[in-house]
Amino acid sequence: MADLPPVPLTIEGSSLLHQMFRLRWSDWRRLSAPDRDEMVAEASGLLRQMEQGGREGSAVYSLLGHKGDLMLVHFRSDFQKLEQAQRCLRKLRLFDYLEATSSYLSMVELGLYESTQKTYSSLAGQGVEPFSPEWNQGIEDTLQRQREAMAPRLWPGIPGNPYLCFYPMDRRRGEGKNWYLESMTERSRMMTEHGMIGRRYAGEVRQIISGSIGFDNWEWGVDLFADDPLVFKKLIYEMRFDEVSAVYALFGEFFVGVRTPAADLGSFLRLE
Amino acid sequence: MADLPPVPLTIEGSSLLHQMFRLRWSDWRRLSAPDRDEMVAEASGLLRQMEQGGREGSAVYSLLGHKGDLMLVHFRSDFQKLEQAQRCLRKLRLFDYLEATSSYLSMVELGLYESTQKTYSSLAGQGVEPFSPEWNQGIEDTLQRQREAMAPRLWPGIPGNPYLCFYPMDRRRGEGKNWYLESMTERSRMMTEHGMIGRRYAGEVRQIISGSIGFDNWEWGVDLFADDPLVFKKLIYEMRFDEVSAVYALFGEFFVGVRTPAADLGSFLRLE
Amino acid sequence: MADLPPVPLTIEGSSLLHQMFRLRWSDWRRLSAPDRDEMVAEASGLLRQMEQGGREGSAVYSLLGHKGDLMLVHFRSDFQKLEQAQRCLRKLRLFDYLEATSSYLSMVELGLYESTQKTYSSLAGQGVEPFSPEWNQGIEDTLQRQREAMAPRLWPGIPGNPYLCFYPMDRRRGEGKNWYLESMTERSRMMTEHGMIGRRYAGEVRQIISGSIGFDNWEWGVDLFADDPLVFKKLIYEMRFDEVSAVYALFGEFFVGVRTPAADLGSFLRLE
Amino acid sequence: MADLPPVPLTIEGSSLLHQMFRLRWSDWRRLSAPDRDEMVAEASGLLRQMEQGGREGSAVYSLLGHKGDLMLVHFRSDFQKLEQAQRCLRKLRLFDYLEATSSYLSMVELGLYESTQKTYSSLAGQGVEPFSPEWNQGIEDTLQRQREAMAPRLWPGIPGNPYLCFYPMDRRRGEGKNWYLESMTERSRMMTEHGMIGRRYAGEVRQIISGSIGFDNWEWGVDLFADDPLVFKKLIYEMRFDEVSAVYALFGEFFVGVRTPAADLGSFLRLE
Amino acid sequence: MADLPPVPLTIEGSSLLHQMFRLRWSDWRRLSAPDRDEMVAEASGLLRQMEQGGREGSAVYSLLGHKGDLMLVHFRSDFQKLEQAQRCLRKLRLFDYLEATSSYLSMVELGLYESTQKTYSSLAGQGVEPFSPEWNQGIEDTLQRQREAMAPRLWPGIPGNPYLCFYPMDRRRGEGKNWYLESMTERSRMMTEHGMIGRRYAGEVRQIISGSIGFDNWEWGVDLFADDPLVFKKLIYEMRFDEVSAVYALFGEFFVGVRTPAADLGSFLRLE
Repeated sequence: MADLPPVPLTIEGSSLLHQMFRLRWSDWRRLSAPDRDEMVAEASGLLRQMEQGGREGSAVYSLLGHKGDLMLVHFRSDFQKLEQAQRCLRKLRLFDYLEATSSYLSMVELGLYESTQKTYSSLAGQGVEPFSPEWNQGIEDTLQRQREAMAPRLWPGIPGNPYLCFYPMDRRRGEGKNWYLESMTERSRMMTEHGMIGRRYAGEVRQIISGSIGFDNWEWGVDLFADDPLVFKKLIYEMRFDEVSAVYALFGEFFVGVRTPAADLGSFLRLE
Repeated sequence: MADLPPVPLTIEGSSLLHQMFRLRWSDWRRLSAPDRDEMVAEASGLLRQMEQGGREGSAVYSLLGHKGDLMLVHFRSDFQKLEQAQRCLRKLRLFDYLEATSSYLSMVELGLYESTQKTYSSLAGQGVEPFSPEWNQGIEDTLQRQREAMAPRLWPGIPGNPYLCFYPMDRRRGEGKNWYLESMTERSRMMTEHGMIGRRYAGEVRQIISGSIGFDNWEWGVDLFADDPLVFKKLIYEMRFDEVSAVYALFGEFFVGVRTPAADLGSFLRLE
Repeated sequence: MADLPPVPLTIEGSSLLHQMFRLRWSDWRRLSAPDRDEMVAEASGLLRQMEQGGREGSAVYSLLGHKGDLMLVHFRSDFQKLEQAQRCLRKLRLFDYLEATSSYLSMVELGLYESTQKTYSSLAGQGVEPFSPEWNQGIEDTLQRQREAMAPRLWPGIPGNPYLCFYPMDRRRGEGKNWYLESMTERSRMMTEHGMIGRRYAGEVRQIISGSIGFDNWEWGVDLFADDPLVFKKLIYEMRFDEVSAVYALFGEFFVGVRTPAADLGSFLRLE
Repeated sequence: MADLPPVPLTIEGSSLLHQMFRLRWSDWRRLSAPDRDEMVAEASGLLRQMEQGGREGSAVYSLLGHKGDLMLVHFRSDFQKLEQAQRCLRKLRLFDYLEATSSYLSMVELGLYESTQKTYSSLAGQGVEPFSPEWNQGIEDTLQRQREAMAPRLWPGIPGNPYLCFYPMDRRRGEGKNWYLESMTERSRMMTEHGMIGRRYAGEVRQIISGSIGFDNWEWGVDLFADDPLVFKKLIYEMRFDEVSAVYALFGEFFVGVRTPAADLGSFLRLE
Repeated sequence: MADLPPVPLTIEGSSLLHQMFRLRWSDWRRLSAPDRDEMVAEASGLLRQMEQGGREGSAVYSLLGHKGDLMLVHFRSDFQKLEQAQRCLRKLRLFDYLEATSSYLSMVELGLYESTQKTYSSLAGQGVEPFSPEWNQGIEDTLQRQREAMAPRLWPGIPGNPYLCFYPMDRRRGEGKNWYLESMTERSRMMTEHGMIGRRYAGEVRQIISGSIGFDNWEWGVDLFADDPLVFKKLIYEMRFDEVSAVYALFGEFFVGVRTPAADLGSFLRLE
């Protein structure tokens, strides 16, 4: 199988944008109470509408710590709609009091290690040349079947749990340990073991993986949604000991937020 | 024992938030003295109340150096209450003169290497399958016993010593040296040796370890409380030579502060 | 061939400047609508003219995320003209509301691994001493022929596709793996394999490579233009598994933008 | 000697704070000349007094380059007094025009490799158990003798030379080369060789080493005082070839300043 | 020769300060045209005078990209004069509209690998003990002869070419590859090969190397002056393949500027 492509098949769904903002509290306070009320009404009106978008929805989180005060998470069908969301938010008068501290652009992604191995083997068994039109058609058939079967996971609504943990990550490409030089078989084995840990937490945490190669500074983004934030620590600590994380995972910044319904924005922004 | 889980059991207690702030001294000075007095009164009122919260308390430190002027440390029962603390502080008029320079989010954590080994061995000796319901119950029993026995260390009040040293840290996951690939036995041995140094300083320094995997950018936060700051240097220098620190410890920024009771906030903020 | 120079021949074309800007939305909003209209008219007038410059043209992109709001890409015949472009933009009243967040300076570059090997071998076969006048002339003849043959790729107009992905990159010079210590033959082989992936995406993505050694902080800049941004991810992910990228590629920040014709600048900047 | 502690004895003296500031020149210029004169008088009054503090003194340096305009160096008997110095400076009206760009917190430290080896050997020779009360007393006796003998070096005044070079540094803890895993004998040998270079520059440069483990982001701070700044380059370049620096030294930012007596502050701040 | 010092002799000349500034264009525009004219006249008057300083001269460059708008390069006889230059510039009213973004402090340096080896060998051959007074005198004689012979290169005027490329660099001290552990013979051989590339570009680029160990964050600064900026790329790319650069060179930020005579400052700053 040495000549088969080393690239695992992936299928993609929703386009995701995470926006982290710091509020300029002192400027905000300088406004009159009626001005603030008006701006809150305008902003919570738009955000409530975005909240109700289902698979094209948005959600607001109050961040813990200094990395930002608010995190907005947008799920959309494509980048054009994310760009539209950016434009709509900028038109809010409240936006003048927000300062972008970070962001993350990605697409929901499902890696298909198992299907990849089956499809590559089957096509190779039929003597199909990699990257020939027949090969490409065979691959596309697999992808299309998977896209249909996985549609609910590719195009999810934003889970409603009170806590969100978001972080970006890479697979290591070190001089000694390099994920991209491991064989498909080895990578597949490690990803399966990794997935088994996740499965043990299935009832307690909802995980959405998005790919960001070519979109942002890390390779993947991870969103974890839970009712109890301790689960974030338990899950990620346990994973840190499995081979793919212990050896190959590199992590960016961690953001933890508390879900804040648009209807509660006024309370979040209240100064009295 | 090769097939037993590699993850040490941990028990968690209080949720911790460290907030570092720089004061905008020039804006502060521009206020009239009565305005400043009023803001100080409002802020020290709230902080005095937070100070008296016991296991749900807060403390104020005057930082040395440019990483911030003030550090607020909050111990709470959960993240929701930390988020509430953030909201309360933002409502202070003094808050308009504070600029967040850093922060850290974590939970008090006790690592149970010894209990882990005993429990895993005992369950394995009884032929219990890892992660089976019976196994999970056995683990939960151990955790519950430990949580009760360790409650005072899991839910501490903030020690009253005049000096605090706070820093975050990681265990190294290098290409050659990787903590998460060491065996449970080896890690347990190194942690025991590490703990013996700490014990020699028991009378001079109070140490609170908090876990932050999944919460913030490093894996652990360390708070050291002492009457004489030289002890911070002595203790950490001595530890730097033990195996677990010499080989596996990576450190973030160090913050050193002098405890400033809320009642002295006025004196700290006085410009005349 | 051990004594032949290790340096691959390159030919250069257009000078490129990427400028990333954040808009100061709150200051922008504070202007009266007629003032804003006037500034938009002035800016979109200049940008429309720059847009129509063909091989000396510019293009505007609306960025996704917080790395900037707008990216301006300038293709010019030399650095003097890039400096002139900078000066013209600064004179716009709109410029007062823009804050530079990043930039990249480079020159369109074509690496000639194949021609290099042929030319070096042929000159060496004729007994010509490297760096002798005769050698230099032989090299210059090759370069000149290539410059003429490749002129359309050296002096391109900015492709009109709606999506742009820009990122800078290096070839690794690690202690163990070092691109610059690989033999010409090995580098040439790896670059050929790398190029074959790109060719499979030829219909879907337009790639412009620019060299920036001596000009900016990374060695190369990469611009990818496509109608569907998913192609960025597919192409770069597939490339990450080929030897030259897996082992030797180091990446900087990724910027993704949506093409915004100068004529639509008013709509981009509209706040109502 | 394998079981003796690996930690070299150290003795500590003065507490040090380096403060780097940028002046907000445009705001400074906006003041009326009499206002500026008044602020200069107030500031140079306080600084002149601090300058005359001897072993509890301070000094002002005009920095070269953009890392700051002024560096204040404070030598005090403890951290409490450093915190007091911070408070006093903030009360200056001039302070409103200063922006902290960096700082460093440390304590004058003398490493006693030679005494350590002698003391450990002697105690071990008498059969004294490490960390027993008798051992601790033996160590404390050595430290106390050394503290008395070294008092002038532990509690120095700030040398009066016109040039100061300050930088922080670490000893490497790499995966292959790790200072903290070297034997006491090896470390002692390397430190002795290192010291011999310093001794050759004794007449030209005055060196004060301070420890900052547990206080700031690096392990040590180095202050070099000289009449000719070329000596900084000569000394550090020569040291870079000795084993302990070549292999184990990691350096932070370098700050170079020209001594500016408080009496000349007015001239430094003059704008006409 | 194992016992001879490993440090190559160097001779030093002019003190160099590079200052990078961003202009606050929006504040600048807010001034009345006559105010701006006055400030331009004042600034270009001072800069014209500095420009004419010969070996104690300064030059102004318009930077490409966002790392700054202007770069000022100062050549002076010592640090005191650089500090004076800083003071003079701060007094300009234009200075209020400049924000320092970077800087670099260094001294023109010539490394004397060949003379070092000859001198060390000759002194050793005469049985002179390293660092004895006789040895020191022998070294000083060599340095003095070289300083006289090299005076024009040690105390250069600023070349007048339209393009400048500036960057700082280090020699690697990695765990595996460490420049400072290479033998004098090997370092000398590599530097000679390195120099031969430079010589091939002698007619096209003027190179000034300055040492910054003990002065700034990198070990050396490199200034390249040329009529065609493509030469920067050609030269540095070719050098990247020679052993000393491929293995041991680490680079900081690159700054590229277009020479802007003081007389043209008005045109550079014009907004209409």
